[in-house]
Amino acid sequence: MSIRIGILGYGNLGRGVECALRQNPDMELKAVFTRRDPADVKILTQTAQVCHVDQAPQWTDRLDVMILCGGSATDLPVQTPQYAELFNVVDSFDTHAKIPEHFAHVDAAAKKGGKTAVISVGWDPGMFSLNRMYANAILPQGKDYTFWGRGVSQGHSDAIRRIAGVKDAKQYTIPVDSALAAVRAGENPELTTRQKHTRECFVVAEEGADLDRIETEIKTMPNYFADYDTTVHFISEEELKRDHSGIPHGGFVLRSGSTGWEQEHSHLIEYSLKLDSNPEFTASVIVAYARAAFRLSGEGAHGCKTVFDIAPAYLSAKSGEELRATLL
Amino acid sequence: MSIRIGILGYGNLGRGVECALRQNPDMELKAVFTRRDPADVKILTQTAQVCHVDQAPQWTDRLDVMILCGGSATDLPVQTPQYAELFNVVDSFDTHAKIPEHFAHVDAAAKKGGKTAVISVGWDPGMFSLNRMYANAILPQGKDYTFWGRGVSQGHSDAIRRIAGVKDAKQYTIPVDSALAAVRAGENPELTTRQKHTRECFVVAEEGADLDRIETEIKTMPNYFADYDTTVHFISEEELKRDHSGIPHGGFVLRSGSTGWEQEHSHLIEYSLKLDSNPEFTASVIVAYARAAFRLSGEGAHGCKTVFDIAPAYLSAKSGEELRATLL
Repeated sequence: MSIRIGILGYGNLGRGVECALRQNPDMELKAVFTRRDPADVKILTQTAQVCHVDQAPQWTDRLDVMILCGGSATDLPVQTPQYAELFNVVDSFDTHAKIPEHFAHVDAAAKKGGKTAVISVGWDPGMFSLNRMYANAILPQGKDYTFWGRGVSQGHSDAIRRIAGVKDAKQYTIPVDSALAAVRAGENPELTTRQKHTRECFVVAEEGADLDRIETEIKTMPNYFADYDTTVHFISEEELKRDHSGIPHGGFVLRSGSTGWEQEHSHLIEYSLKLDSNPEFTASVIVAYARAAFRLSGEGAHGCKTVFDIAPAYLSAKSGEELRATLL
Repeated sequence: MSIRIGILGYGNLGRGVECALRQNPDMELKAVFTRRDPADVKILTQTAQVCHVDQAPQWTDRLDVMILCGGSATDLPVQTPQYAELFNVVDSFDTHAKIPEHFAHVDAAAKKGGKTAVISVGWDPGMFSLNRMYANAILPQGKDYTFWGRGVSQGHSDAIRRIAGVKDAKQYTIPVDSALAAVRAGENPELTTRQKHTRECFVVAEEGADLDRIETEIKTMPNYFADYDTTVHFISEEELKRDHSGIPHGGFVLRSGSTGWEQEHSHLIEYSLKLDSNPEFTASVIVAYARAAFRLSGEGAHGCKTVFDIAPAYLSAKSGEELRATLL
């Protein structure tokens, strides 16, 4: 019998989860829950239902895991504790500074409901966190580096769109090659986020808008761009649509460390992702952890978990024997 | 109270474990066990004892984990089951094809003794296996690639040394850049181990030896070199000592996969290691898993485990709260 999955929230991430489930034959999408009128939401999976979110509590016996695809700013802080009392859940809560607080709320709710909740699943937090943690445990003497990109930053793109005279915009965060090279060379440089990244902006201006003013407003915008090496390209709406409609992302996690009685040997651990679709990759990680949530719940391991707390084998559809024979 | 560690076998790996323990203040080396005369074995840790291996059974109450640093060919198949009945153990058994058999023997012994054994720890098997497994679980549709090197292959170096007229030799396995580039470009090439690697040999010949014959013997040696693009350099003994006395290694694990309803998006996951000292890095991984073995044993999780079965947090000296606040 397959693992029965619900999706709560059907945006880019929810649709990504739907696609990922199609690649995992041991799991089945049963229902998508939406705040919109279900009649207006068209999904891809013909065998699944679309329901209003208010109906979710009636599905507790029909779903093994509810995957929460809302946003971290306002949705998940409320939804994850709420649904963790009713379902095994997985979320992608990514406000790093608020993870401890979110963990506490979700843990209390999941324990109350006798459910398993996995929070902050994706690639950062998620796979990047795992790689930081493994590398730190292996090389206690060393330095961590995380570079993001080349990828689209939604928040920075939105900030540009709010400037008068801007019709549309897309912003890419780009790692600085020379900084990455210095880390790889074992130079252990001290680097701020700003020294590690540049920002490239593709802007569609309204007709007759003052391009110089827009460019200056972007480049001097505090927090977002002022301290970065920022490039602005004005392009047509057609070009934006043709060349910049994807949501690529990725990045690098490195740890440079030393071993030996006198720290005489250097080592570099590097993990990187190059993603065509940020939400689809995030969704793929989430789906693997939904399998883990289902299994952990079956073993009575209730409460809130993160990627740090879950043995890798729980993510795989393969048995321990198969994993040892093929991937070890 | 710190975790009390024993090391069985004091070669490059055993010494690497000793160095790694120095970087982990929650662990303490108590004793090194050797088949040699203990009086002849000088260790670096002044507070630890050197004992004959026959004394090991007398240490069951004085050690939390025994780290087995023997070889995979003949030592570990016997030693790991033997000591897993008496101690929590970690080994670095790396004969991939025989892992299922080794697992079964060690599992039976550890369960009989009520101990926790972790086998096949290091980087391949070990960290590379973990990365293959995570990447497979996340991207079920895709292709795996493992490249080894640039690094010293002990077996190939030994094979050269057995040729008449060869005084000493060091062989490096080197990934083929163009093959790696094709994988990174998402071309999903079909590549054999031979197409992925070249072999570079540094040979010290005896005086008056026929260099052409030696070079031919190397390049035509079945299994080891015949099917590879092999380069032979004759150098002096001094050069070998000066430039090739290290034991570097490393490599790359990649998974190229696709997501989307029609597999329309591509992704690349890459993990790589660049190691100055193969045995010291392997030892560093082993020490982190020794911490895990100790904790799992305390929880009653007995029997044989691999890296797939152990939640990442068990490897770290930090608490769950600290990990969530700093590395997630």
